Amino acid sequence: MLRLYGIPTSGNCYKVELLLKQLQIPYETVEVNSRVGENRRPEYLAKNPLGQIPALELEDGTVLAESAAILVYLAEDTPLYGQNKLERAEILKWLFFEQTRIARYIATTRFLVRAGQAEAHAELIAQNLKSGTEALEIMEGHLQGKAFFVGNRYTIADLALFTYTHVAEQGGFDLKPFPNIRAWCERVKTTDRFFPLPGA
Amino acid sequence: MLRLYGIPTSGNCYKVELLLKQLQIPYETVEVNSRVGENRRPEYLAKNPLGQIPALELEDGTVLAESAAILVYLAEDTPLYGQNKLERAEILKWLFFEQTRIARYIATTRFLVRAGQAEAHAELIAQNLKSGTEALEIMEGHLQGKAFFVGNRYTIADLALFTYTHVAEQGGFDLKPFPNIRAWCERVKTTDRFFPLPGA
Repeated sequence: MLRLYGIPTSGNCYKVELLLKQLQIPYETVEVNSRVGENRRPEYLAKNPLGQIPALELEDGTVLAESAAILVYLAEDTPLYGQNKLERAEILKWLFFEQTRIARYIATTRFLVRAGQAEAHAELIAQNLKSGTEALEIMEGHLQGKAFFVGNRYTIADLALFTYTHVAEQGGFDLKPFPNIRAWCERVKTTDRFFPLPGA
Repeated sequence: MLRLYGIPTSGNCYKVELLLKQLQIPYETVEVNSRVGENRRPEYLAKNPLGQIPALELEDGTVLAESAAILVYLAEDTPLYGQNKLERAEILKWLFFEQTRIARYIATTRFLVRAGQAEAHAELIAQNLKSGTEALEIMEGHLQGKAFFVGNRYTIADLALFTYTHVAEQGGFDLKPFPNIRAWCERVKTTDRFFPLPGA
């Protein structure tokens, strides 16, 4: 059985867990709590030298890392990934956008705010609010007239982008100016076997 | 013919241009100079709403963005991408690692140092030197006993990681403690139709 290392409240872990559930792939979980540094323990680094959560261990012991790469691995032969070269390039574009802008600016800011570290990092948070809002503007524009990001159906691009976007307000972002994003978030929540991000 | 938007001295543009040359795919270039904000002009944003360089315009007018997604698109049916699901997941893992750690910490630092802005961003640069060096340590460990990152052959994972790593010292990183990385950089330079990063 597949083995997922991480914690349920981590957005990047949630992405993989949501996809596993939506694809009805059985798995077991092993808690690696990055909040207390368990991702830096030698026994975990032996499995995933990148030192992040999540990691996914296959039945032969191979360990996959980087949440977006894991999403592609799991979705590859399903409608949740691209059905042709162009769709795959579009989905990958949004997966890279998500990691370099949404996770970087929105997830980091939400984490600092919820950890009570907003004042200590005021300058970083101000920059992130600006850069994260620019990313939201790009998403809002792209969603104009579209139900989902790529191919007019729910894919791992939506799943990944949804995760930190739908809780952006917990980091001080304002989603009111983005009706397309808000409607799309509600749409994602109606997909088969969806479950909410724990602790959000 | 494919049309590549960007500037030759941008590492992310160089990655795509190097791959185009190595795959012997004909293309033409259109200069979009991000150093003077040309990536923010309305006519470019109409092509690539993400506002970054590079972008690759296909013959039908479709525009691809995010350098790593473009690499996958171009290499998909060649030995430079993964030949099976697991190889693809490994290559994607390193492409995401590259964007979230090497490009983020090393490329940014090199840019600031070369632009004479090191003092103005001293705190950021100190953090980046630490985080970037941790990323180099992960690469050094992975390369132990290996010629290339995935599948014992040159792939787009090597191409992408090489780009900012081989000029890391221009950003103040020390590559002397990383003999595996230095040997691997020399190996990448011997691949067919390799050409050096302009202006480096």
